[in-house]
Amino acid sequence: MSSDRVVVIGGGPGGLAAARAVSDVGTKVLLVEEREQLGGTPIIENYAGLTPRGEPARPQIQKMIDAVSDNPLADVRVGTKVKSLVGDEGAFTLTLEGPGSQGPETLECAAVIIATGFGHFDPGRSTQMYGYYEFPDVITQADLEAMLSEGKVVRPSNGAVPERICFVQCVGSRDRQIGNEYCSKVCCGVASKEAVELRETLPDSKVFIFYIDMRMYGYWENEIYWPAQELHHVQYVKGLITEVLPKGDRLLVRGEDTTMGRPMELLMDLVVLSVGMEPSPGTREMASLLGVKQNKYGFIDAIGSPLDPVGTDRKGIFACGAALGPADLEDTVSSGASAATRAVACVRALSAGAAS
Amino acid sequence: MSSDRVVVIGGGPGGLAAARAVSDVGTKVLLVEEREQLGGTPIIENYAGLTPRGEPARPQIQKMIDAVSDNPLADVRVGTKVKSLVGDEGAFTLTLEGPGSQGPETLECAAVIIATGFGHFDPGRSTQMYGYYEFPDVITQADLEAMLSEGKVVRPSNGAVPERICFVQCVGSRDRQIGNEYCSKVCCGVASKEAVELRETLPDSKVFIFYIDMRMYGYWENEIYWPAQELHHVQYVKGLITEVLPKGDRLLVRGEDTTMGRPMELLMDLVVLSVGMEPSPGTREMASLLGVKQNKYGFIDAIGSPLDPVGTDRKGIFACGAALGPADLEDTVSSGASAATRAVACVRALSAGAAS
Repeated sequence: MSSDRVVVIGGGPGGLAAARAVSDVGTKVLLVEEREQLGGTPIIENYAGLTPRGEPARPQIQKMIDAVSDNPLADVRVGTKVKSLVGDEGAFTLTLEGPGSQGPETLECAAVIIATGFGHFDPGRSTQMYGYYEFPDVITQADLEAMLSEGKVVRPSNGAVPERICFVQCVGSRDRQIGNEYCSKVCCGVASKEAVELRETLPDSKVFIFYIDMRMYGYWENEIYWPAQELHHVQYVKGLITEVLPKGDRLLVRGEDTTMGRPMELLMDLVVLSVGMEPSPGTREMASLLGVKQNKYGFIDAIGSPLDPVGTDRKGIFACGAALGPADLEDTVSSGASAATRAVACVRALSAGAAS
Repeated sequence: MSSDRVVVIGGGPGGLAAARAVSDVGTKVLLVEEREQLGGTPIIENYAGLTPRGEPARPQIQKMIDAVSDNPLADVRVGTKVKSLVGDEGAFTLTLEGPGSQGPETLECAAVIIATGFGHFDPGRSTQMYGYYEFPDVITQADLEAMLSEGKVVRPSNGAVPERICFVQCVGSRDRQIGNEYCSKVCCGVASKEAVELRETLPDSKVFIFYIDMRMYGYWENEIYWPAQELHHVQYVKGLITEVLPKGDRLLVRGEDTTMGRPMELLMDLVVLSVGMEPSPGTREMASLLGVKQNKYGFIDAIGSPLDPVGTDRKGIFACGAALGPADLEDTVSSGASAATRAVACVRALSAGAAS
């Protein structure tokens, strides 16, 4: 038995890009999403604007959803889980469990793309001294996205408008103590974008970003980093924040200003933790279920990287986007399309084989 | 008249990835390269190892060349220039001028992918105080790649083995004075990779990297940056280098150590300038000839970025890799495949139209 179909697991930006690309080039694709809705993290976490240019996230992601939903070659199942995979490249049999009580369903496919993305680092882990679960005014970038999306940024503790807001970078990244030595790549850009949005929403606020290195690579440098400083007066301080403590009804942020070479203590109304990326539970689960190699952090290993950035160690199974590690949206979209071309090649190899 | 073919302009990693992807999904592709050989910058500039993992560049790039050359759907023309393009998406007519005296040739195609890449910033521009054209022991990252590739790193001035070597980051990047406000994205990673290769080649050398921010994003952090410091003892100094002067038969490097907050002067045997990316002459020329929008730096503008990272403002014309701006190899390969899926969609739209 065999199939002329590609299956994409995960309906976020990477999976949507992959599914669109498979159907765009004329191959049947099934997109399987465990949640009840498509769109992935930007939709689930209610992102405000996209990094770097700040276009509203929801309509942009909706366009990606429409491009898949409208394509007659693409089939979409939400609320559906992958339960098992057997077989080899060109002839996999997949078992799915969908909504309702009709029981598991099996189907054939030639190749699989894992697009199960990332989850945010939990800033409440024991090594973290920032009081995320103790102080309501300590929030994450994702919490702030949701507030910015609603157009209402307040201190969760008392509903007041915050005057002094700071970002703490590299929470859960570049940190051997917690086992995440890698850099999460996007947090510098996202913090800067959110800082600009804050300054636009609350023109009287003062906004600080405490960083180790500002990783504003490529055009993020000129598109966000320069304007954030020059037009929006975001204050970047090279420094390490060691702890956050309550002081009166505010928060005392303690650390070291590494440029000035001295300790610093600053009062803040709102502290935003720039939490890093970790493999999503779905990425860990699918890697294990499908039997593909993970790196020491649990992301799927692109064993042929950099020139083969989407292949796994199992033939016919590809991965894309943040299932492979920290990735921005642009990376993720291209990576999805890249995996699509490799998966479609498996379908074609099969039909060439059948014809001979 | 119309065509079921995609044309890719440029035979470096981006163009090779694009051409491979087009043919992998079953569509005819013509790859046009102005030079006499494929492989682009990594081959022309004789790269040693690929960033981040240091695999030898030439055999890796050769695999990409073979994947295209061996595909019956792919046709390759080297030594060939694009002279003009007329028509619209689905029905372009391209004029090529190839080797020999047979005169220009026209052919039809449905879509075009521009993969003309980048050129290195010229560190001899008048604003640059590093003496690249004055002192033979001031070289660029590309010059060093060629030396590492030959396995022989010496001071060009006297053929001696260098003992003290430094990298100066952000030469031609993040610099408003020269008009390049963007970050060139890869130079931190490449410098770190080269620094490790230097320490392996010359175990008695001392290697310094002077940087503004180390942009070791994603896995570059754990794959290069940590080992460079901990295993290879590369010395990273946050500082700005303002000038390079001769002193005896060595070079005096002057600047400010921004962490220590004091001026510094260090003697070096070899100074490596981490020169940034600019649009290649081919990128400027093709953008102009094909009539696609360029950004203020001359790179091709991906007007729908980040969620459409490869579309230009002209329908049916896509761009990929460093023709769009600073990109690492992994970005470039995925971006090439991404452009391929969009270009193939133009071919399919056409055949769907013809069938109806």
